[in-house]
Amino acid sequence: MFSVSREIRFGDCDPSGIAYFPSYLNILNGVVEEFWGGMGFPWHDLIAVRKIGTPTVHLNCDFSRPSVFGDLLTFDLCVRQVGRTSLRFAHVVSGADGIRWKARQTVVATSTASHRSIPWPDDIRDALEKHVHAEDAMLPSAG
Amino acid sequence: MFSVSREIRFGDCDPSGIAYFPSYLNILNGVVEEFWGGMGFPWHDLIAVRKIGTPTVHLNCDFSRPSVFGDLLTFDLCVRQVGRTSLRFAHVVSGADGIRWKARQTVVATSTASHRSIPWPDDIRDALEKHVHAEDAMLPSAG
Amino acid sequence: MFSVSREIRFGDCDPSGIAYFPSYLNILNGVVEEFWGGMGFPWHDLIAVRKIGTPTVHLNCDFSRPSVFGDLLTFDLCVRQVGRTSLRFAHVVSGADGIRWKARQTVVATSTASHRSIPWPDDIRDALEKHVHAEDAMLPSAG
Amino acid sequence: MFSVSREIRFGDCDPSGIAYFPSYLNILNGVVEEFWGGMGFPWHDLIAVRKIGTPTVHLNCDFSRPSVFGDLLTFDLCVRQVGRTSLRFAHVVSGADGIRWKARQTVVATSTASHRSIPWPDDIRDALEKHVHAEDAMLPSAG
Repeated sequence: MFSVSREIRFGDCDPSGIAYFPSYLNILNGVVEEFWGGMGFPWHDLIAVRKIGTPTVHLNCDFSRPSVFGDLLTFDLCVRQVGRTSLRFAHVVSGADGIRWKARQTVVATSTASHRSIPWPDDIRDALEKHVHAEDAMLPSAG
Repeated sequence: MFSVSREIRFGDCDPSGIAYFPSYLNILNGVVEEFWGGMGFPWHDLIAVRKIGTPTVHLNCDFSRPSVFGDLLTFDLCVRQVGRTSLRFAHVVSGADGIRWKARQTVVATSTASHRSIPWPDDIRDALEKHVHAEDAMLPSAG
Repeated sequence: MFSVSREIRFGDCDPSGIAYFPSYLNILNGVVEEFWGGMGFPWHDLIAVRKIGTPTVHLNCDFSRPSVFGDLLTFDLCVRQVGRTSLRFAHVVSGADGIRWKARQTVVATSTASHRSIPWPDDIRDALEKHVHAEDAMLPSAG
Repeated sequence: MFSVSREIRFGDCDPSGIAYFPSYLNILNGVVEEFWGGMGFPWHDLIAVRKIGTPTVHLNCDFSRPSVFGDLLTFDLCVRQVGRTSLRFAHVVSGADGIRWKARQTVVATSTASHRSIPWPDDIRDALEKHVHAEDAMLPSAG
């Protein structure tokens, strides 16, 4: 599992005082970016050097409790499945009082030239497969 | 069905040259805002005057084809269901070549003071119920 | 002078309830984008076809009155000066009660390949020079 | 002087591949937020507890070199002047090759209720005044 902390910033919140969901997803995208870096494949190299994009093709979010300006959140990411061209993440975002929101995300390896899907190169697939975890490991209550 | 056109802007796109999904969701939120205005309940009044927030509690997106800077997209919104405190939207976003992405979104009426869910007031519920449509009406190929 | 209207959206506002200045500048960038389109040089073609970027090198903003969610603003843009590689805009943003903020912006024509400045091509320069206006024309009180 | 590092993220860049200036300013706002926290006045408390907003009334930016996805930047902030109700910052943003951009920013203490300016409370003024620095200290070449 990959885990990072993020504080909810002024610029992430909306006029009702809570985190704005598009900003949440911008933060989530940054967490995925750090995951790639932590794996040894910095995302900017993936795109600029290896010409591999990883657009999101599916996203499913459940927002159970609001977050407010200044909240410190933990973003936990696990790799659920590595397909031929796809990659499935599960995300759990928690605050001091438990889970705030959860997401499932599927990205697909694409050629940045053609925007068409391509198989994961072997070195990337091997690294990703080492990170496949049971999703239950992310839940605070997993006993 | 409620429908608006949006051009994908420079600021909506990412360094791989396609629409960035958090920006897509920011645009979507603006479409929902226009929907409320078109219904006769401007969102800023809903929040500032009636003290009703409508946070998103569920969001499910399928992105099937990328959009690039300058693409003109049609955002179609239909109300799928009006619950006691909830409201379910279906969104279909199309370009010249057909569907680009689809989303299902559930929002919940909340008190802006307590962030707790509240029943839709009668006037809002009545207006929303007039907009409930079969989702099939949104699909270009629905015959 | 080029002029467009924009309503301040939910997603443009911050938790203190007023327009967030980075969002203001994202809106401003969209106004400049519409200016290019209105001139007959859609920005996406400028970048994708003609390989000309127009990064902002100078920006000077004075925010005199706050805007709130739902405010309808008028964005007035005038071309102050066309240099060999540069272009200077003046922006005035007004609400119902007068000026909310003003900005001066300098952009530079660059090669999207090298990110180095290049002279404006003749057709673009000719079109831009037709839009040079006295800045005073933008002020409501100009008598 | 207050100093933080930030990596330019995928979501901060535009389709020409460089940092988008409204995103730069969103990052800058986060740096100012960290400055307040580092001073012992977390910004969320300033707004939520003490009911003091700090809107930007003036911003002057010079962008001298572009930044690309993955660049690690240093944001240096110094307090130039503490007025009765105002506060002037100077920002210098540098990459490995020197200065990328500089900004001067003036914010004003306001009541979050009335959006009118108010004098800085004594404890905040005292803390701010301890951070007033000669701006030259920020320049790498200051000899």
